[in-house]
This record gives sequence, C-alpha cells and structure tokens, in this order.
Amino acid sequence: MSKHLTKRTDDYSKWYNELIVKADMAENSAVRGCMVIKPYGFAIWEKMKEVLDKKFKETGHVNAYFPLFVPKSLFEAEEKNAEGFAKECAVVTHYRLQNDPDNKGKLRIDPNAKLEEELVVRPTSEAIIWNTYRGWIESHRDLPLLINQWANVVRWEMRTRAFLRTAEFLWQEGHTAHSTKNEAVKEAQQMQEVYADFAENYMAMPVVKGVKSESERFAGADDTYTIEALMQDGKALQAGTSHFLGQNFAKAFDVKYTSKEGKQEYVWATSWGVSTRLIGGLIMTHSDDAGLVLPPKLAPIQVVIVPIYKNEEQLNAISEKVNEFVSEFKKRGISVKFDTRDTYRPGAKFAEYEMKGVPVRIAIGNRDLENGTLEIARRDTFEKQTINQTEVINFVENLLNEIQENLFKRALNYRNEHITEVNSFEEFKEVIETKGGFVSAHWDGTAETEDKIKELTKATIRCIPNDVKEENGVCIFSGKPSNKRVLFAKAY
Amino acid sequence: MSKHLTKRTDDYSKWYNELIVKADMAENSAVRGCMVIKPYGFAIWEKMKEVLDKKFKETGHVNAYFPLFVPKSLFEAEEKNAEGFAKECAVVTHYRLQNDPDNKGKLRIDPNAKLEEELVVRPTSEAIIWNTYRGWIESHRDLPLLINQWANVVRWEMRTRAFLRTAEFLWQEGHTAHSTKNEAVKEAQQMQEVYADFAENYMAMPVVKGVKSESERFAGADDTYTIEALMQDGKALQAGTSHFLGQNFAKAFDVKYTSKEGKQEYVWATSWGVSTRLIGGLIMTHSDDAGLVLPPKLAPIQVVIVPIYKNEEQLNAISEKVNEFVSEFKKRGISVKFDTRDTYRPGAKFAEYEMKGVPVRIAIGNRDLENGTLEIARRDTFEKQTINQTEVINFVENLLNEIQENLFKRALNYRNEHITEVNSFEEFKEVIETKGGFVSAHWDGTAETEDKIKELTKATIRCIPNDVKEENGVCIFSGKPSNKRVLFAKAY
Repeated sequence: MSKHLTKRTDDYSKWYNELIVKADMAENSAVRGCMVIKPYGFAIWEKMKEVLDKKFKETGHVNAYFPLFVPKSLFEAEEKNAEGFAKECAVVTHYRLQNDPDNKGKLRIDPNAKLEEELVVRPTSEAIIWNTYRGWIESHRDLPLLINQWANVVRWEMRTRAFLRTAEFLWQEGHTAHSTKNEAVKEAQQMQEVYADFAENYMAMPVVKGVKSESERFAGADDTYTIEALMQDGKALQAGTSHFLGQNFAKAFDVKYTSKEGKQEYVWATSWGVSTRLIGGLIMTHSDDAGLVLPPKLAPIQVVIVPIYKNEEQLNAISEKVNEFVSEFKKRGISVKFDTRDTYRPGAKFAEYEMKGVPVRIAIGNRDLENGTLEIARRDTFEKQTINQTEVINFVENLLNEIQENLFKRALNYRNEHITEVNSFEEFKEVIETKGGFVSAHWDGTAETEDKIKELTKATIRCIPNDVKEENGVCIFSGKPSNKRVLFAKAY
Repeated sequence: MSKHLTKRTDDYSKWYNELIVKADMAENSAVRGCMVIKPYGFAIWEKMKEVLDKKFKETGHVNAYFPLFVPKSLFEAEEKNAEGFAKECAVVTHYRLQNDPDNKGKLRIDPNAKLEEELVVRPTSEAIIWNTYRGWIESHRDLPLLINQWANVVRWEMRTRAFLRTAEFLWQEGHTAHSTKNEAVKEAQQMQEVYADFAENYMAMPVVKGVKSESERFAGADDTYTIEALMQDGKALQAGTSHFLGQNFAKAFDVKYTSKEGKQEYVWATSWGVSTRLIGGLIMTHSDDAGLVLPPKLAPIQVVIVPIYKNEEQLNAISEKVNEFVSEFKKRGISVKFDTRDTYRPGAKFAEYEMKGVPVRIAIGNRDLENGTLEIARRDTFEKQTINQTEVINFVENLLNEIQENLFKRALNYRNEHITEVNSFEEFKEVIETKGGFVSAHWDGTAETEDKIKELTKATIRCIPNDVKEENGVCIFSGKPSNKRVLFAKAY
C-alpha cells in the first residue's frame, strides 16, 4: 500500500477505508463484516467510554451485564422490535462440535447437540432485559430503574464498513424503567442531551438534536430522539439515539408495579445507545488528506516529542531535557509520548504521527538545546512555531484547548453552511445531488411522501429538529400544508 | 425467600447460591447457564477491571478488540486447542430469522440463510487472534506484541454455577508474541505475578503460585502457570492462569518474523486470563453466615452512613453534620453512601448492608449530635465502637486498611492451616475426605497416577508450587521415586 492517502475529493470512501488502515485503527477480520479494532483505534474507544460512563453515572445510572443470547421465544415477544431485527440475526443452533468422521483433523457440528430452542445473538437487549425486569420491579419503590450495559451486539448487515456498520459492534445500551410517562420522556430527552454534549464538547462534532419521523424510529419505540452529525462529504450520520419506548415492552413482558395508591400499572421505558460508529463519525468530521485529525480531548496521545539527533551523546542531552517536560505534562494530565526509537528517522516519525492525528508535535534538536528553544507543530492547521523551552508547558496546554475549539468551529461552520432551506422539489433534488448536506424543507407529515422522496433521491428525513419553529408552508413534494420544516439528507 | 441465609456448615453450596441473590449480585437468566450480573455485583467487577487494567498497562500492554466469532476452519487450526474446546462450543449456523408460516407472530430460522461456514462463539480467542497476528508481525521490530482484550466468552458447560462456571462469562485475555522463548516464558511468569499481587493485595485472597501438571494444562499450551486459592469449604479455586504457548499457535497460523540476522523464525506466544470467576472466589474466601464480606479495596461502597431519627427536623440536623463527613471522605477517595431513604427503618438498612458486605457502617442519631459522637461498626468482626465525630475521617481511613489486612490474615491463616503434608495414600484420602484443603504429597510425575488418584478421590493436582523444595521421597500412590511434593485438592 502506498504511503499516501487517496485524496478525499478523488474518492471519499476509499480515503476513509485507507485512513483507517494507515492510521492503524482497525482492519477487516476473517469473519465477514466483523472488524478487528487495533490498539490505537481501541484507545480512542476507551477514552470515549471513560467520558460517557462518567456522564451516565453522574445522571444516576449504574452498569450491569445481561446475557449475550436471547432465546427465540423472548425475542419474539415484542412484535415490532422482533420484526425490525429478525432479518439480521445471527442464530446459535448447536452447542457442540465433534470430530468429522469424513475429514481427519476437521470438526463438524454434533447433530446430537441441537438446542431445543434457538438462541439469537443479541442485536439489542430490550427483550432479555425486560424479561429480567419483570422480576426486579414490584413496587413504585423499585422505580426508576436506571441501568446501562457496555456490550457487543451483532446485526448481520449485508453491506458493512469499518466502524460505521459492522456485523459485530461495541456499544452501550441504557435501559430504564419509570412509573410515569412524563418521567420516561424526560429521561429519553436527558440522554439525548448527554449524547449531544459528548459529541460537541469532546468529539468536537456539531450535532442537530431532533426527533425521528415514525418510519425512521427504532423498532418498538414510540419516539426516537436522535443526534445527527454531518460528514465532510455532505452525508449525515446518525450518531446516537434515545428511545421513549412507551409501555410496549412492559406489556410484551408483563412488567407492572404497584403504585403509591395500590394500583397495578404497567411501567414506562426508555433505551438509548451509542456505539463504535462514533469513531467513524470522528474520523469523517475532522480528518484530512494527510490522515486522521483528533480532538485533543479524545486523542490517546495528545503530544508527541521527536528528538533530532546525530549520535547517542546528543540523544542523551536531549532526553535529559525532554524528560523534565514529560513529567510536567503528566502532572497536568496531558498524555505525552517521547519517541526515542532509533529504528525510524525523524521524517518517518513526523509522517506517522500526522497520519495518526496526534494534535501537537514537538521537535527538539541539538541546536534547540543550545538556544533553549523547540519547535511546535499543530496537526489541525499544520502551523509550526519555535518557542522558548521555558514556555512549553503552558503553551501546549493552551494550544490543546485552542485546537479543540478550532476543530469544533471548523466543523460547525461547515455544517452550518450545509443546511440549505429549499421550497420546491426541484430545488431539493438539486441541493441533494450537488451541494449535499442537510436540506430543510416542508413535509406533509405522511410516510408515503417520505418514502417517495427517499425512492427518488435517496434522501431520508434525519429529524425534526428540537428547535424547529412553527412556520406555515406547503410540502415540497405533495403541496399539502405543513407547519414546520424538517431536515433531510443522504445518510450513512 | 427467607431473610436469613442458610448456614455454611449446613449446606455450603446452598449458602453460596442464596448469598449471591440476597446480596443482589447476580441471578439466573432465561438462557441456560447464563447469569445476569446485577449492578451491585457488576460494580465489584468494574473495580477489579480498573485495578487489573492499570496493572496490564503498567507492564506495557495495550487493549484491542477481536471478533466474537471464530470461523470453524480457523478454530480447527491448532488441534489441541480445538479438541479441548470443541465439546463446549456454541455454534452460529444461520444469519436470519423469518416469519413462521405455521405459527402467526412466531419466528423461525430462514432455511435460505444458512452460513457457508459455521461460526464458533469464542470460548477463547487464540485462533482468531493468531490468524490476525500473521498480518501484524513481519520483523523483530514488530515484537514483542503485548495485547489484552476485555471480552465475553462462551463455554457450553453442562453444570454451571453463578460466577464460578457459567456458559457465558466476562474476562480479559492477554495474547502476546515474542522473538525468543525466554522472553515469552518471562512474560507468562510476569503475568502470574501480576495476578497473584492482585489476588492477595486487592482481593485479600492468598494464593499459591505454581505450574500445572501436563494433564491440567490449557489446551494448546506448553506450560500453564496458575494461582490457586482455597475456599472456606476446603475446595481449591483456580483463580487465574497464564500460559506459555511455545510456538504452537505460530506454527498453526504460520506466524514468522525476520530476525536481526535476517532469518525467518516462528514467534513465541503467551496467553493469560482472569474472569468473573474471581467474584466467586472473593465471596467464598471472606463471606460469613450474615452475608457478603468485601475487602475495602474492592467494595463498591466502603462506608455507609445510616441516620437514626424520629422526625424531619432531626434528619435535617443529622444530614447537615453528615454532609461534612461525606465531602471529607470523598476528598480522601473513600466511597461513601449516606442512606436517607425514609422507606426503610435503620434496622432493615443495617441488615441490608451487612448482607452486602459494606466494610464500615456508621450510625448517627440525635443523641450523638448532642454528644458529638457516632457509632462505627466493622463488617469483618462485627465490632462496634463509639468515637468522637472529630476523629471520624482518620479513624475510618485507618479502619479500612485494618479490615483489608485482617481479611487477608484471616484467609491466610485458614489457608496455611489447610496445607497438609501426607506420606501415604491412606493419609491422603483421609485428609481429602475429612479436613479438605491442599494436600502436599509426593507424586511420580505420571499422568496415569494423577488420573487414578482423581478417579479414586476426586482430588486433582492443583499445581507444582513455584517455591517447591527438592526433597527425596516416594509417590504416595505408586511408590515410585519423587523429588518434590505437589499440591492436590478437590477443586471448583
């Protein structure tokens, strides 16, 4: 494979796939549609998990763990949910292999080890969890129940793509139970806010908060709250969803509680999740033709220091100085790597960290030692600057904040420039085909119109934004009256 | 279910199962042999993970993630490993469900969605990982490769038991690759030390470090290093293992590297893991007839404060004082819960936290406010003491350390009292049947003798201790010469 990335303008999709491999984030595995998340990619997921897990706990949630497998009879119980996922379920049918009598050294399924009931590998855990909650909830004193799980799930998608859509992926799924509808709705909305805050303030990825149209809702939900981001190629990415599940699962699994008044009532539910897909969003929001660009708050390595030396003596002198910086950076909670490998030249190291999106690179050579200086390069703008060594810690700390802000602003400008209001279907098609991005248009509220538009343009309704304003208009497709604009886009 | 636990002396196994439910740690699920880990049990696992993950990183390892599924052909590649796990593999054969035409509202497997090659749900990940490593390792510069994964695995065991042996369990598995045999052996031994340090200094669970006999080795390993703990019923628990895999997987998956001298060489390997089984070990090492007993370093709640009050005014006065303590405890990194629920009486709260093994309980009432005192109870010894409020923070901090030490000492005394040297098979049987624990005996080193002893007594060789001393003797069973004692026990 060449050292250089395909340019985004040449082939965005190829650029994305190459970047993931060259930045050492992930690769395809021997299992169709499943990826191996390599240490560097996984380190980003660990950072995401750490921040999110803290936010979940601060909002009162606790973690637990439910089985990987869902017996088919439980999976069937909530019909819409079952229908929504049935076509992409991996199914365990046997629990033993045996030696293949026809093929020495090979194994085959033991025909005597067929399961009485097939087990679905969880595509999502509502069924197994609500079947469990029936035993946990008796009285209003047991509510709310606020539980999250970090887990792997499997959805046998036909077309897969690293991070964005893989047969197995890692995610968290929150599953909460409440005594009132109002409390459940508030919970679902709160988690949408938590996700939006994470996307914008950690991933530096601006999102539109909104609610899904009925056709785009999660299977089994009464309402789906979403955060929608915009990628550099003008396609939208659903980055996180939070569902108000009404009493659908409570009814399917007979989960009731005794109210303060002594009445038996069905419980109200939410579920919400984000996944390793976020890493795909992160890549496609910030990265450039030189490789990955990472916001400092999620970068596994925030600062890399590359020594420029001719002999061991010089390296020793540089190391002595650098080790002081390293310990100062660590004290401030800044993750730093001092790359002293003698098997690579500085130029190769520069290229590697550029590809890997390390926000700040410091180079320090013999001349710098004499002058008390060093060179600082920022990944987002490629700007370089020589500063005094005495300033380096404060300078870098400020620079990391500046880069975080700059990435968000840059992405926000791009996103805002790519929300286009249109008032006719001609205009709609034109914008979707050429400019891309979100298209804000009036819609008559029917699934037929939505389907028709999708069929003709591949654009779907991403959401009805939370901050939508009432405005009289007519549907761009049917001409029927509409009182608000919704956001359409082609999406991942 | 009764409020009280079955006594350990009456039925140890029943006591264990009841405790897990009453302490709110886990319960059986709708899937045979799979458990639901409830929030309180999972919080213990989170604490374990946090400590272990830090230790792995400090010893140079990084995390990654490999697929849940292993294609059958890869699974077969390392024959011993395949043979060892084939009989307990859950196998995915289909990737889609469809509506059952004979049963409205029900689903069935779609016969047209049969996988060309069956997928094994990983019972362990050597196969999928070594198949991947082939692409990652070319030169000596790529070594060592030091990777760990936190994951779920499935082993379809016939007899299961919460935490100790479940069809699905959570674990970590380290998989490392090295250029020399010596380095790989050192790595495997290092991880045994890491596990032993964790067991003794965090779980307060003494362990014997040793090496497995050939029959008890991991399938595919050249050597298995183990840490063996002793439960209160005199049975041993294999608590963690670290395997030197030789070049077995490198050969099965053709993983070679170019040495500094330019030669193609097979890579040397290790793997090592601990699982949610540790929680079972934790329970059975320290807990008593009143419920769970937790070492402070792994307790989700280290200190609980229960207010004793008659009216809201009293509660408010108490709360004002307690909130000061709470913020002081938090500053010192002590996790504290102030239980102000008005739906339970103090006595019920005392019982609940006793069952849940909270190390320190503080009770504070109106009288205490007047006197500037409070009552402290420790879970390990049930001792109570009234102290001045001014001392509470330092007192509790010291007490937590004392409890941690006391639990370890208590367990160590029990364990040491239960290592019995025997010199005849009569003595051996007598000790195994009556006293239990580890039996230190001479063994002739053959698998036949080992098997025979197992058949007759159900005791297995737990390990040949690392610190075994050379000593001439004769095998207790065969009378053949032996130069060291090994440890036998009945085991979980």
